Amino acid sequence: MNSFGRKFRVSIFGESHGTMVGAVIDGCPPGISLSEEDLLPDLARRKSGAKGTTPRREADEPKIVSGVFNGYTTGAPITVIFENSDTRSGDYKNLIVQPRPGHADWVALKKYNGFADYRGGGHFSGRITLGLVAAGAIAKKVTENIDYSTEIIELGGSNDKADYDSVLDEAVRTHNSIGGIVECTVKGCFPGLGDPFFDSVESLISHAVFSIPAVKGIEFGAGFASAKMNGSQNNDNIIDINGTTETNNAGGINGGITNGNPILFRVAVKPTPSISLPQNTINMETGNREDLTIKGRHDACIVLRIPVIIEAVAAIVMADLTLLS
Amino acid sequence: MNSFGRKFRVSIFGESHGTMVGAVIDGCPPGISLSEEDLLPDLARRKSGAKGTTPRREADEPKIVSGVFNGYTTGAPITVIFENSDTRSGDYKNLIVQPRPGHADWVALKKYNGFADYRGGGHFSGRITLGLVAAGAIAKKVTENIDYSTEIIELGGSNDKADYDSVLDEAVRTHNSIGGIVECTVKGCFPGLGDPFFDSVESLISHAVFSIPAVKGIEFGAGFASAKMNGSQNNDNIIDINGTTETNNAGGINGGITNGNPILFRVAVKPTPSISLPQNTINMETGNREDLTIKGRHDACIVLRIPVIIEAVAAIVMADLTLLS
Amino acid sequence: MNSFGRKFRVSIFGESHGTMVGAVIDGCPPGISLSEEDLLPDLARRKSGAKGTTPRREADEPKIVSGVFNGYTTGAPITVIFENSDTRSGDYKNLIVQPRPGHADWVALKKYNGFADYRGGGHFSGRITLGLVAAGAIAKKVTENIDYSTEIIELGGSNDKADYDSVLDEAVRTHNSIGGIVECTVKGCFPGLGDPFFDSVESLISHAVFSIPAVKGIEFGAGFASAKMNGSQNNDNIIDINGTTETNNAGGINGGITNGNPILFRVAVKPTPSISLPQNTINMETGNREDLTIKGRHDACIVLRIPVIIEAVAAIVMADLTLLS
Amino acid sequence: MNSFGRKFRVSIFGESHGTMVGAVIDGCPPGISLSEEDLLPDLARRKSGAKGTTPRREADEPKIVSGVFNGYTTGAPITVIFENSDTRSGDYKNLIVQPRPGHADWVALKKYNGFADYRGGGHFSGRITLGLVAAGAIAKKVTENIDYSTEIIELGGSNDKADYDSVLDEAVRTHNSIGGIVECTVKGCFPGLGDPFFDSVESLISHAVFSIPAVKGIEFGAGFASAKMNGSQNNDNIIDINGTTETNNAGGINGGITNGNPILFRVAVKPTPSISLPQNTINMETGNREDLTIKGRHDACIVLRIPVIIEAVAAIVMADLTLLS
Repeated sequence: MNSFGRKFRVSIFGESHGTMVGAVIDGCPPGISLSEEDLLPDLARRKSGAKGTTPRREADEPKIVSGVFNGYTTGAPITVIFENSDTRSGDYKNLIVQPRPGHADWVALKKYNGFADYRGGGHFSGRITLGLVAAGAIAKKVTENIDYSTEIIELGGSNDKADYDSVLDEAVRTHNSIGGIVECTVKGCFPGLGDPFFDSVESLISHAVFSIPAVKGIEFGAGFASAKMNGSQNNDNIIDINGTTETNNAGGINGGITNGNPILFRVAVKPTPSISLPQNTINMETGNREDLTIKGRHDACIVLRIPVIIEAVAAIVMADLTLLS
Repeated sequence: MNSFGRKFRVSIFGESHGTMVGAVIDGCPPGISLSEEDLLPDLARRKSGAKGTTPRREADEPKIVSGVFNGYTTGAPITVIFENSDTRSGDYKNLIVQPRPGHADWVALKKYNGFADYRGGGHFSGRITLGLVAAGAIAKKVTENIDYSTEIIELGGSNDKADYDSVLDEAVRTHNSIGGIVECTVKGCFPGLGDPFFDSVESLISHAVFSIPAVKGIEFGAGFASAKMNGSQNNDNIIDINGTTETNNAGGINGGITNGNPILFRVAVKPTPSISLPQNTINMETGNREDLTIKGRHDACIVLRIPVIIEAVAAIVMADLTLLS
Repeated sequence: MNSFGRKFRVSIFGESHGTMVGAVIDGCPPGISLSEEDLLPDLARRKSGAKGTTPRREADEPKIVSGVFNGYTTGAPITVIFENSDTRSGDYKNLIVQPRPGHADWVALKKYNGFADYRGGGHFSGRITLGLVAAGAIAKKVTENIDYSTEIIELGGSNDKADYDSVLDEAVRTHNSIGGIVECTVKGCFPGLGDPFFDSVESLISHAVFSIPAVKGIEFGAGFASAKMNGSQNNDNIIDINGTTETNNAGGINGGITNGNPILFRVAVKPTPSISLPQNTINMETGNREDLTIKGRHDACIVLRIPVIIEAVAAIVMADLTLLS
Repeated sequence: MNSFGRKFRVSIFGESHGTMVGAVIDGCPPGISLSEEDLLPDLARRKSGAKGTTPRREADEPKIVSGVFNGYTTGAPITVIFENSDTRSGDYKNLIVQPRPGHADWVALKKYNGFADYRGGGHFSGRITLGLVAAGAIAKKVTENIDYSTEIIELGGSNDKADYDSVLDEAVRTHNSIGGIVECTVKGCFPGLGDPFFDSVESLISHAVFSIPAVKGIEFGAGFASAKMNGSQNNDNIIDINGTTETNNAGGINGGITNGNPILFRVAVKPTPSISLPQNTINMETGNREDLTIKGRHDACIVLRIPVIIEAVAAIVMADLTLLS
């Protein structure tokens, strides 16, 4: 389903080449100052245009059409819409016959019996994440005490930022794509959020993060590295009664519950499947394997646009947990 | 909260040293042959007793007290309980003053204002996963078409199974603990399960897996390795109209939806925080940092007992998705 | 919260004098023929204009902005919006000082700390039910096997249809308002829908029906009259193996589950609180009781517009139950 | 499904003649004094034994098996169980062939394909409401500020309490059963609870109340009578800034939200379908209509035992709303 959250609940809708995309944000408390301008900084961070991102140009202009009155949230559902404009639907028609490797084309065909909107990825498009970013910007206002930040710590296999530019150049030059790893830090959240077991903070954040297209892994604190440690190395000593720990291998979460130290997690982003190189796929009409060259505009490196989306879904989770506490 | 699932819904309850632990499984279809015996093989796989696991001995004898009649599920909620017997509560009293590093003691104190049952970890205890394993065994019967398997692919930092035994010996000998990585394969599930975005199969599985204590990371298919690949390497070519792919870097999931290839994910398990070595922590009464030596019985390597729990939560997710489809 | 349904999930948003009102319908199966025209008949039944209804004139023109492609539902969320046009916000400003009797003004002030959009009732407005009617029209297409009908069986205290016209005239003439009772019949739904206890069909239908403003009572089958019967009178004899009953005092539901006979329920609708007669209320600034004469346009008899809304929410419930079964 | 509530969540399980019935109450705050004794007064009010109630005698002895430690709630799920003892399963076997009029036998057969536990009504039994009453007693402790009371305002068609005794005698004497109307008053709850539309207080209370077997109608405040009033009669004048109203035709709820005045609702309870008189039903094996005389023990007047159950579900709703606010 397309909604998430128990008390701060986000529903997203729209298709890449439809009339609009957007989000309904239910459960936002009244009295929070909010205007379209508040959403622009995060939307700008998601925008394409930089080297390695799609040449599709959209205004990405948010319109708040409900839930705000005289500059403040009212307590009613907030609806944010983004009209689509720069659409070239002619580019995509062949993909219901030749499903693209690494894309959702084949599963869409099976799941929706051929009725899915295939234009530009339809409802699978990364464009739907506009609604997530808008909801995230609102969630950040709900959790003013919390500071969210992200950093690309690996790009195209390199963890040396000095290489990032040449890595990107190479991907564009070779008509290929690259992935990367994004680290997110959430500072200042109260201890005691989350629950043991099913509503652990890791459960909720991972649930939200895996709703972002192209994400294939997540780890908290020391994560996969902790699997190589001894308990004596991995355990975080508590050094004051506020629960401050010497190390933060737990990533700010024990027993599923925030411990007041920064929440820290890393997200693996796969290379975008849309590449201009010839690939091989099945022809669903003939059953033959065929070469496929993908037309259309796409990102050589979606990683550049994903950090703000990761912050957004983290903020959505923290807003929900904060309001529930 | 302590329940999970939209149509196949599992609720867990109990404390390590309370009267009993258990699970209520709601939404199971009627007419499935079920008895306590059906739960025993998976429960046995979770049991302690092997080298590196806690010397606590529990019968782990399941009693099905509702939802089964004349040997078949009725369609009403199935309740499975496990009475606790081998409890030694005297071992644990000091931990509300000296919260153990890496444990949930400190967050429990904050979240529950000192009212949490601290005996043996209380409701945070791994013992609560008995209910998950029982629910998982039932979920496996609901999804008879699906085959679940797990393998420990790394233990104490080694990925050579020949080393596992000595790695364990070393952990026990040094009164320390070790972690590891478990790989889970889910074969035979129908394509088309799951949804784009919030109810992606990755979202649901990760949500469930992070409800298992000690899990700190998860990756699907190529996972973190995919972040180092080019799109041309990572994309899985589709080789027949049934969606079979040449490689399975996607781990059986595209656009959040099963593609019919095996679902493949790996889980990072941290070393259990309970070690017998002296550690340092805060005294919550005096505010002084103090040495702490943990008494009580515990696992040097919880990884050995976790594979069946991972299968269980995967099965719970697949049962829910299958019944919803 | 503003969403309802487990598998066919409706979220509503908007304010009476905001930019637009609308609904997001998630979980609708793909492949259902759908266009704006399909929504018009039910929307027309809800429209004002007849004697006893508000002189506010809105086009009530639905725009489907997501979830439909080439004339068919896609399986993605369907968003229907209605732009507001005929708004006269000047009419309503005084009501935050003088909360109107029988309205939500006072509770809105308390719950939303003065930030609620008070224009035309804001998010409390009956105008929000446009989204319900649109969602209901779609739900009816999802449940093609089911026939929904409604009848006003009491108006202004009379159960003689011949009186309805004069009753209405009297209400308009005296600047007062009247209520009534609507009976809804749902024919053709499969037996076996719903669950005992919390998800009984009565629970779900009543939940949905009480979300319609002005509803103050509901009864199923013989309802309150059954409280006066003996068991031997009230029990419905089963006369064939398909479960057909001689009488239908149960209103088509036993043990919370549909029995295949028509679902029958009656809904009490209070007189709309907006009347032009002078009333007495509190001045929230001075604390004095004051006379109040309500300006603005309103319905003398909302009952006339409610039958199609009742059908809509019934259809939403039946669609959800049908898809879950 | 068998759970209810967003933050104070109750799950019920069990069968009339199974091992036990019970409830899991999740989301109860820590630090509330709680023991089995606290549950006894409400359980006693539900008990059979009085004239007009079933001769089945059960100890109805609650055991709290999780979630309470040292006399206080811990914040973990509270599980309350009731072991069954006085079961005579031989009484009920014929009802899968001859479904009883007014009972859930026929729908159970259809929904559960013959696998439902038919003994004593199985999971449809009123005995399952033991879990509701236990959960309600806990919910009352969570909402200490609120006072819940109920009154039988009509019995067997009479609203004169002086008649009740003879009405009951007549029902028992004639081997028939009678229904009635119960009025519930909820005093002292904070204004501002609930939401407009789907989570209106009327929606939530009615949802919960219709989960009680035998309930066929509910009305709030003036309810069905308000349908006969003019707006000028029905509107409740607000007489002070705390929202106190002169009348309470709204039953304490405007726009779905509590207004601080007592919540008032009336519930129609049908006569229990179990009567000893000969009835007519279908034989599911032969397809013939046959006479049926029901054996077993049953209540001639379930109304006597229902008030405390109505209070219980009201308290469950108020606890959930209070914790969410």
